[in-house]
Amino acid sequence: MLKLLPHASLDPLFCPRAVAIIGASNDPNKIGGRPLAFLKRGGFAGTIYPINPSAGEIQGLRAYADLAAVPGEVDAAIIALGAEAVPGLIDAAIAKGAKALIVFSAGFAEIGRKGQQLQDTVAAKAGAGGVRVLGPNSLGVFSPRSGFFGTFSTALDHAWPRAGRVAMVSQSGAVGSYVYAMAQAQGVGFSHFVATGNECDVDVADAIAWLARDDDTAVIAGYFEGCRDGGRLIAALETARARRKPVVLMKAGASEAGAEAAASHTGSLAGSDQVYDAVFAAHNVYRAHSVEELVDVAYAAAGGRWPARGRVGVITPSGGVGIVLADAAAAYGIELPEMPQAAQDKVRALVPFAGPRNPVDTTAQILNDFSIFSRTLDIMVEDVGYDVLIAFLAHIGRNPAHMGKLKEALIEVRARNPQSLFALCLLTDPALREELNNSGFLVFEDPGRTVRALAALRGFAQGFDTKLANPNAGTAMPHIGREQRNETQSKQLLAAAGIPVIPERLVRSREAAVQAAAEIGFPVVMKIVSADIAHKTEVGGVALDLRSPAEVGATYNTMLTHVTQSMPSARIDGVLIAPMISGGVDTILGVQHDPVFGPVVMFGLGGIFVEVFRDVAFRVAPFGEDAALAMIKSIRGYPLLDGARGRAKCDVAALARAISKLSQFAHANAGAFAAIDINPLVALPDAAFALDALIIPTSQPEEDPAHVRHA
Amino acid sequence: MLKLLPHASLDPLFCPRAVAIIGASNDPNKIGGRPLAFLKRGGFAGTIYPINPSAGEIQGLRAYADLAAVPGEVDAAIIALGAEAVPGLIDAAIAKGAKALIVFSAGFAEIGRKGQQLQDTVAAKAGAGGVRVLGPNSLGVFSPRSGFFGTFSTALDHAWPRAGRVAMVSQSGAVGSYVYAMAQAQGVGFSHFVATGNECDVDVADAIAWLARDDDTAVIAGYFEGCRDGGRLIAALETARARRKPVVLMKAGASEAGAEAAASHTGSLAGSDQVYDAVFAAHNVYRAHSVEELVDVAYAAAGGRWPARGRVGVITPSGGVGIVLADAAAAYGIELPEMPQAAQDKVRALVPFAGPRNPVDTTAQILNDFSIFSRTLDIMVEDVGYDVLIAFLAHIGRNPAHMGKLKEALIEVRARNPQSLFALCLLTDPALREELNNSGFLVFEDPGRTVRALAALRGFAQGFDTKLANPNAGTAMPHIGREQRNETQSKQLLAAAGIPVIPERLVRSREAAVQAAAEIGFPVVMKIVSADIAHKTEVGGVALDLRSPAEVGATYNTMLTHVTQSMPSARIDGVLIAPMISGGVDTILGVQHDPVFGPVVMFGLGGIFVEVFRDVAFRVAPFGEDAALAMIKSIRGYPLLDGARGRAKCDVAALARAISKLSQFAHANAGAFAAIDINPLVALPDAAFALDALIIPTSQPEEDPAHVRHA
Repeated sequence: MLKLLPHASLDPLFCPRAVAIIGASNDPNKIGGRPLAFLKRGGFAGTIYPINPSAGEIQGLRAYADLAAVPGEVDAAIIALGAEAVPGLIDAAIAKGAKALIVFSAGFAEIGRKGQQLQDTVAAKAGAGGVRVLGPNSLGVFSPRSGFFGTFSTALDHAWPRAGRVAMVSQSGAVGSYVYAMAQAQGVGFSHFVATGNECDVDVADAIAWLARDDDTAVIAGYFEGCRDGGRLIAALETARARRKPVVLMKAGASEAGAEAAASHTGSLAGSDQVYDAVFAAHNVYRAHSVEELVDVAYAAAGGRWPARGRVGVITPSGGVGIVLADAAAAYGIELPEMPQAAQDKVRALVPFAGPRNPVDTTAQILNDFSIFSRTLDIMVEDVGYDVLIAFLAHIGRNPAHMGKLKEALIEVRARNPQSLFALCLLTDPALREELNNSGFLVFEDPGRTVRALAALRGFAQGFDTKLANPNAGTAMPHIGREQRNETQSKQLLAAAGIPVIPERLVRSREAAVQAAAEIGFPVVMKIVSADIAHKTEVGGVALDLRSPAEVGATYNTMLTHVTQSMPSARIDGVLIAPMISGGVDTILGVQHDPVFGPVVMFGLGGIFVEVFRDVAFRVAPFGEDAALAMIKSIRGYPLLDGARGRAKCDVAALARAISKLSQFAHANAGAFAAIDINPLVALPDAAFALDALIIPTSQPEEDPAHVRHA
Repeated sequence: MLKLLPHASLDPLFCPRAVAIIGASNDPNKIGGRPLAFLKRGGFAGTIYPINPSAGEIQGLRAYADLAAVPGEVDAAIIALGAEAVPGLIDAAIAKGAKALIVFSAGFAEIGRKGQQLQDTVAAKAGAGGVRVLGPNSLGVFSPRSGFFGTFSTALDHAWPRAGRVAMVSQSGAVGSYVYAMAQAQGVGFSHFVATGNECDVDVADAIAWLARDDDTAVIAGYFEGCRDGGRLIAALETARARRKPVVLMKAGASEAGAEAAASHTGSLAGSDQVYDAVFAAHNVYRAHSVEELVDVAYAAAGGRWPARGRVGVITPSGGVGIVLADAAAAYGIELPEMPQAAQDKVRALVPFAGPRNPVDTTAQILNDFSIFSRTLDIMVEDVGYDVLIAFLAHIGRNPAHMGKLKEALIEVRARNPQSLFALCLLTDPALREELNNSGFLVFEDPGRTVRALAALRGFAQGFDTKLANPNAGTAMPHIGREQRNETQSKQLLAAAGIPVIPERLVRSREAAVQAAAEIGFPVVMKIVSADIAHKTEVGGVALDLRSPAEVGATYNTMLTHVTQSMPSARIDGVLIAPMISGGVDTILGVQHDPVFGPVVMFGLGGIFVEVFRDVAFRVAPFGEDAALAMIKSIRGYPLLDGARGRAKCDVAALARAISKLSQFAHANAGAFAAIDINPLVALPDAAFALDALIIPTSQPEEDPAHVRHA
C-alpha cells in the first residue's frame, strides 16, 4: 500500500522501447510464451529480450540467462514466474534500470495474509527503487498501435485487436478480457488495454490519468470493484473531462465499507455505492450497469461525434417501429422535435402516405426506390437541421440485394454531412457491420440500445461543457477539534462556518428573555435548557407563539416555576428564545466520512422522505452552490420546495448556499468528525435555518490513513 | 369495428387444409408470389389454389381464374390485390365457403377516413358472412410445423424458421418481422407467427386466446400498440395462465385516451399505460420494454423449465465476473444462497484457491482440467440442490479446443440433471449457439441479460401458481343512477356498497346534535352543511374535539349564530356530527373508467404522496382482498401504514376490504360513473373510514360503446 512515487510516468508501462520477458517460454500457449508470440505477431518495433536461464533461443529470439546479461537498456520487464521469485526479480529489474514491471504472477493478496505480506514486500521494493508495478496477478497490458503486447490474455487468440481510440482499463483481467472480446466483435478499435490486478502500485485511477493525457486515446472504458483513493480518481476524471474524453465505467460490488460510517441517524443511507453514483454524475462518467452497456457506450463514443444541439430525427420504413423508437427516446429523455410543415410536405411529395412528423415513416416504398430514403434523409439533415439521425432498417441488412443499394444511398448522405451523427438500427452480420462502422455509422440491433447510447453521448457532450464552480476553498473555516459539543455548541460552530442557524439566545433572567425576544422579533418560542430533562413539553418547558414582551416575561416566570415544581432536582442551564417558525419545509443535511472519497454531503427532505422513500442526494465535498442546487433539484420531492400544492416557494438559493458551505466546512475538517447532522434545516420562502444540529468528532482521527492521504 | 361472430374458430386461419391465393404471381419476389413460394418451400401438406385470371399455371401450380372456378373446398383465402378489390372478394370468398381471409392489401384505416369506410364495409360483409378476417394491411400468418405460409414477409428470405414452441403475435408486421428475425438468430423455433394489421376483425386478444389453446404453442410473445377490448385480452391471458403458458408482451405507445378520463382530482395520474402495467402484473404477463428483452424472455421461456424453487447457483472461472453476476442477481431480486460448508470443502479439495461460496469461482484452473468444471457443477446440483445454474464461460466459446472439452463436460452434467435449468453466459458464434441450444442450455452473452431472463422465468413460475381470488361478484351492489350526489349522499351510497364511511349524522336541532354525539361517541367534530358556504372555517362553521354533551349543545347554538350572522343569506341544510379522528394515515382511493379496461381502481397515500411522488397502484375492477392487499403493499410508502417511525400499524386488512368492495361496486356500475373519489380514506390501527367521497355519474353513458361491450 506504499506509494512513494505516485507521479512517476507510466510511459514505460504503456510505451516501452525495450521489454524483457522473465520466464519466457518457447511454447506460445504458456503464460511465458504468450507475450512473446503476441509481440511478434503485433510487429512490436522495440527490442524484445527473452529471459530464460536454460535456453539460448526462445521462439527464434536470442534469450538471456538473466536481466543482468541483457546488453541494452530495458524499460519494461514482464514477470511470468511464480510469486516467490518476484521480490528478487524486482531487485534485479531495479538494478537493470527498468522503469515498469508487469507482474503476471498470482499468489499474492488474493490468496490471503501470506500473499499480502509478499505483495507488501514487492510494493516496498518497487517504491524504494522508483519502478512502477502493474499487478501482481495482472493479465497485463497491450497497445495494438505500437504492437506492444505485455499480456497473456487468451482473448487475443481468436479476436486480434484493431488499433483504435478506445482504452480499456480493468481491475479484473477476466472481466476486462470479456469486455474486450465483446467490443472487438462490435467493431471497436483499441488504443490500450490494461488490467491492474491486485494494484500494489498502478491502480485504475493512475491508468485513467495517464490515458486521459494519451493522444492515441479518445475514449476511456473501465471496470473496477474498488478504489483506494477517491481523490486521485476524481482528479483523473477531471483530467479526462478537460481533454473532452468520455469515461464510461462499470463499478461492481457494492462495498460494505460505507456501513461502518453509519453512526448517526441519516448515515444508514449512505451506502458507498450511492457515493460512486454521485461521483460519476459529478465528474462526467457514464456508469454502465452491464458489460453490454459498457461496450455499447464506449463503441458509440469512439465515433467521436457529439450531438451538440441534440436535435434527433428518426427515419423508419414502418410506423410501428417509429413508435418503439419514440418510446425509447422518451424513456431516455430524448426529444424528437417535429418536422416543420414545409419539410413534411416535401416528404409527402416523395411518398404520399408517408408519416412525415418525426419519427418519419417512409413506408416500405423505400424498397422500391432507394432514392426516397436518401432524399428524405437530405430533407431531415439539410432542411430541418437534425444533427442526430437514427435510421431503422429492420432486416434489410440480411438482404444483400436491398442492402447494397441502401448502403450506397446512406454513404452518399453520410459524405455530404460529415458533422452529423448517423446511427443505424438493423439486423446485420459481422462483415456488413464492419463496413458500416468504417463508413462512419454507428450500428445497433436493438432500438432501445441505440437510443441509450445516443443519450450517453448527449450526456458526455453536456458534461464536457460543464464547468465545476470552484468552491471558495480559501475561506477560513472554523475547526471542529476534539471536544464533544451539544446541539447549541454544534449550531454555533456551523453558524461560524456560514450556515444559517436559527438566531436563538440562551437567557437566564426574565429581563434578558424579554430583551432577546425583542431583538429576534415576535412571535418567539421559548424552551427550557437542561441536560436532565428529556421531555421538555411534559414539564411545561416549551412555549410557542409568544407575541409580546409581556407574554414573554410572564411565560418566563411560569415556565421556571412549572419546571422546578415538576423536576426540583434538574439543573437548569437557562431558557432558549428563538423565532417562531411556522410553515416551511423541513430538510436534512448530513455529512459522512466515506472511506474512499472522504466527506460526503447528503441532502434530503425531512422525516419519512429520507427514511421511507430514501429520497436523498449525495455529493463529495467540497462543492459550490451550483452543485448544491443540482442536488436539491435532483430529489423526487423537489416540487415540495418549489411550490407544489399551493405552497409558497422556498428559498432554494439560501438552501444551496447552506449545503455548499457545509461541504466546505466538512472538507476543511476532513478526518476530524465522524458525522455532521443538521436535522431539520427548515427552508422558508425567504430564508433557510438550521433548527437542530449535531457534530460528532472523530475519537481517533489518526486511525484513518486513507483520509490523510486524500486530505 | 363490427364483431358479430367473435367466437368463430381461428383454426382455418392458423391451420387451413386448402388455401387460395387471390392475386397469385409467378414472381416469387412480388407480394402475390411470395406466399406461394413460401408454401412450396415449407412443404405445405394442404392444397394450394393460385387465383389469377390471366395465367393457366403459377409457379408450377394450376391456377384458376377466380375462386368460383376452384374445384375443391377452400378454408382460407389470401388476398394480395389492391384495397378496392377487397369487398367484392369477400363476397366471393363467402360464396365459396371460406372461413378465413388473410388480407395483405393496404389502403384501409391507415390512410384515413375513406380507407376506414372501406374497412368498415369489409368488416361488415365478413361478419355477416361468418368469415374471419386477418387484416387488412396484414403481413399475414405462418406456421413452420405445418408448412402453412400465408405471408409475404421478406424476413423469411434470409432467415427461414425452425419449427418450435414460441408463437409470435404482432399488430405491426414490421416490428413482428424484426422480432422474428432477431429471435430466429438467437435459435428460437416458432409454432405460429401472426400479424394482425388493422384488426378489422381478428385482434391480438383473439390470437392470444387461440394460441393459448394450441397444443403446438408453449410460449406466447407479442407486440401491440393498442387494444380495443380489455376484457377479451384479460380472458385470453387467463386462458394462457390456466394452461401454464408464459406470455411476454411489448406494449408500445402510451395512449392519450386515458387523459379524457382525468375529470377529477386523482384522475390526472391514471395514464392508461400504467393500467396496462397493472393488467400485465395481475395476469402473469412479462412486459418487455425492448425488442431484445422480448426475444430474450421468449427464448428463455421456450426452454420449458420453470425454476420451481429458484435456488440459483453461479459458477465462473473468475472472481470479477462472479461479482458482476451477483450484482445483476441483486438488481433482479434473485438470491444466491451460499454453499453449505461441506460442499465448499469439496470444491476446495478440487481447487485450493477456489472461491467456493456462491458465485463459485473455480479460477482459470478449469482450462487445465475440464473435469474440475463438471465435478464442481455436480457438487452444486447434487449436493447443494441448486435448480438453476448459471455458468459464465467468458470467451472460451471462441476457442474450439477448449470449448470442445468443456462442452462434453457440460452435456454430461446436463444429461444427469434433466430437471435443472442451465444458463450459459459466453461469447459464441451461431453454430456453437445452435449446438448448445439443442443440448438444452440457455445461451446468453451479457451477464445482466442472463439474469433478467431467469428472473422472468421465476416470475412466470410464481404466476402460474397464483390463483385469482374470485371477488364476491354475487353480492348485490347499489346502483349509481343518473342523479348528481353531494359528498354526504356519495358516502351513503359507498356505505351501502360495504365501504366503511365515517359514521356521521346530519342534525337540525341542538337536541339531535347532542343525541347523535352520544351515539357516535366522544370526542366529535361538528360542521355546518350548506351548499352556499365554501369556506366553513372562516364563518365559524367547523368545531373540533368536542368532548361532552354540554359542549356539543353549546357549540351547536354558537355555530348557527356565527354562521347566520356572517352569511345571513346562506341556506343551511343542518349540522354534521362525526367522530373526531386523530392520527391514522390518509389514503386516497379513486376509480377511473379506462376506455379499454373499464373501471380501474387507484390506491395511494394522501396528498403529496400521490401528487408529488406519484406513488400509486392501479388494478382493473373487480378484484378480491388479496389483490387489494398486494396493491397496498406495492406502493413505496407502504411502511407508513406498517408502523414506520414508531407509528401504530394501520388496519390494512380493513383497507384491503374497502378497496376490494370499491372495485366490486365500480364493476357493478361500470359505465354509470365518470369517476369515484374517496379522499381521504383514513387508515387507523383498528379500522379504516372514508372521510370524504364524491361519485360523479356519467352524463351520457351510451357514448361509450367500448364499455358496453366490456360489461
